[in-house]
Amino acid sequence: MEDFKVTPWEVSGKVDYDKLIREFGTQRIDAMLKQRLATACSGKLHPMISRNFFFSHRDLNLILNDYEKGRGFFLYTGRKPSKGMHIGHLVSMVMTKWMQEKFKTNVYIEITDDEGFLHRKEDSWKDIQEAAHDNILDIIAVGFDPEKTFIFKDSEYIGNLYPMLLRAARKITGSTIKAVFGFNDSTNIGLSMYPAYQTMPTFFEKKRCLIPCGIDQDNYWRIQRDIAEGMGYYKTAAIHSAFIPPLQGIEGKMSSSGAKEAAIFLTDDEKTVKKKINKYAFSGGRATLEEHRKLGGNPDVDISYQWMKILFEPDDEKLAQIESDYRAGKILSGEMKQMLIERVNDYLEIHRKQRANAEKTIEKFMYKGKLAKEMWSKKYE
Amino acid sequence: MEDFKVTPWEVSGKVDYDKLIREFGTQRIDAMLKQRLATACSGKLHPMISRNFFFSHRDLNLILNDYEKGRGFFLYTGRKPSKGMHIGHLVSMVMTKWMQEKFKTNVYIEITDDEGFLHRKEDSWKDIQEAAHDNILDIIAVGFDPEKTFIFKDSEYIGNLYPMLLRAARKITGSTIKAVFGFNDSTNIGLSMYPAYQTMPTFFEKKRCLIPCGIDQDNYWRIQRDIAEGMGYYKTAAIHSAFIPPLQGIEGKMSSSGAKEAAIFLTDDEKTVKKKINKYAFSGGRATLEEHRKLGGNPDVDISYQWMKILFEPDDEKLAQIESDYRAGKILSGEMKQMLIERVNDYLEIHRKQRANAEKTIEKFMYKGKLAKEMWSKKYE
Repeated sequence: MEDFKVTPWEVSGKVDYDKLIREFGTQRIDAMLKQRLATACSGKLHPMISRNFFFSHRDLNLILNDYEKGRGFFLYTGRKPSKGMHIGHLVSMVMTKWMQEKFKTNVYIEITDDEGFLHRKEDSWKDIQEAAHDNILDIIAVGFDPEKTFIFKDSEYIGNLYPMLLRAARKITGSTIKAVFGFNDSTNIGLSMYPAYQTMPTFFEKKRCLIPCGIDQDNYWRIQRDIAEGMGYYKTAAIHSAFIPPLQGIEGKMSSSGAKEAAIFLTDDEKTVKKKINKYAFSGGRATLEEHRKLGGNPDVDISYQWMKILFEPDDEKLAQIESDYRAGKILSGEMKQMLIERVNDYLEIHRKQRANAEKTIEKFMYKGKLAKEMWSKKYE
Repeated sequence: MEDFKVTPWEVSGKVDYDKLIREFGTQRIDAMLKQRLATACSGKLHPMISRNFFFSHRDLNLILNDYEKGRGFFLYTGRKPSKGMHIGHLVSMVMTKWMQEKFKTNVYIEITDDEGFLHRKEDSWKDIQEAAHDNILDIIAVGFDPEKTFIFKDSEYIGNLYPMLLRAARKITGSTIKAVFGFNDSTNIGLSMYPAYQTMPTFFEKKRCLIPCGIDQDNYWRIQRDIAEGMGYYKTAAIHSAFIPPLQGIEGKMSSSGAKEAAIFLTDDEKTVKKKINKYAFSGGRATLEEHRKLGGNPDVDISYQWMKILFEPDDEKLAQIESDYRAGKILSGEMKQMLIERVNDYLEIHRKQRANAEKTIEKFMYKGKLAKEMWSKKYE
């Protein structure tokens, strides 16, 4: 019966997202809510929303209430440093950036260098710091507003919020952590404490916080929702995405800990992208050219099509055309791959340029921008 | 058979200190070691050592080796803030201060405001900070060297050592914490993390650390000894004291969480001291004056005598005289109490004066003294 699995530490099988919504007790982002969102941001929705890649939420309706009443809200996302961000890591970042642009909100980006270090016994502190720097450049390249975005490393900001961290930690028991994170008595005490830090940015403002994240992360935020009101803050809201499938096929989730060929990394060059997609991208095409022309391909399982749908072909009309041409057998499997290769390489070329530029703006995001300066002058209790 | 109990969270019954040494696997501070110590500090030993109140140790011999070879060592003690320090809390402080004076070493005093806050759900952060300030004044009044002593609050110094804290935490599992501290799954995650912080000052210098503490605290330092060499530092050394008995009798340990009458607080005025001792101090005297004169008193269970032996009568000859006069029935129970009352009140009068003065030097100990300034300029990884 259990043909798929979604926990914060494992995603496998063909995910039934409707079932997830029921099990997690979240809400679907339905047509009405999408309409409200479109009205609020006075424009077109991001394709990841309109195409239901972000499909679930908690309290997005309350976020919109607050926005409409002028109270506003703020955004929070983060990253556990590790060498090599891949396409899948972009999803939450791209959505957060889009929301910031549309709603002119502050964004807090937590770089959990402590978590990374506690998690990987083989890594030195220096390894983690290098990965953190590397990741921050990739994140900045997504295009956040340097005056309204605060990127911080846990290890650097700890002095500004330690009393508040203790206040949260005092409310969370070992049992809760074991249940939510799958920890046990062999888990090191640092890792067991860390989830308290993850709630911190949700308390950075006395407004409602919105977290764009994968549905597999929902569990983490339940801890925040359990303690938030007792801390004198709002329960955080969230919008949840589905998973970008690995190149090899529609099941599971693209992962950097899995095979390197299953993911496209932001540092992959043009040739590598071409090679990986040509060699590994699962195709919905038929066994022979003749059959394909006759019966057509299946975009529902074709990774090249799916990636374009999720992230690389924002134009709805073009996408619809590709889909119908593929189903009609007009587009061949290799042509579909070629379309993805071009789009991914275009995307990565821009990313690389913005990443090179990020070295110049990193100071703003972390220390000198308007929001960053404000944050460094604050002490949270 | 178990007629006494010594854990970091409970001391009860008549403690068999020899048995403790065997069970804990520590060493007795024997005559030879005392001789070495006396030679090293070129003078008389502190009465708490010569009279075997500090009776056990780990690696004190190695500390003396290091000292003799000119490598030196440093001292570490601490305090979990709570309103009202009592006589029992002075023991480690007085010993640490004596050692600093004799060996001219640096002293680190950790004020564990995080632990206090995590421990007492009913206290606000402000409550803990007030208690911390209050305790720091009492500690300074003991007479430490303001240029060679760094008193810090965990919450303030966290930013200077967080990476090193993570390094320690990564080496400590939940099982260890449960076994050593008696924690369980209902314990909050902050408290479970805290023991890693307690090891931090032992890594402040690349020398051996010596911790004067009650034997009941030995357990805590076993964690440090387990991880120290893997961190690139020495296993900490320690000297262990017996317990100052409560006024009501020779068993157990003076405690601020117990009855207020069982302890003399550093803030108790002359009248209160007189009243408490007269009313509650368990006497080794006989039932009637006649019997007492004839059979003599028993100093071994007489709390007034015991307190003088531990802390309030440094003169060995005087103490010996008191003892023999008491055994001979020459000193009456009430006279014994009167002797203690005078000595405690003399002690507290000086303490009060030094405490009033401490408001002026607190800045030095925490931020501006030679050692404090050095510490604030350091970052530990």
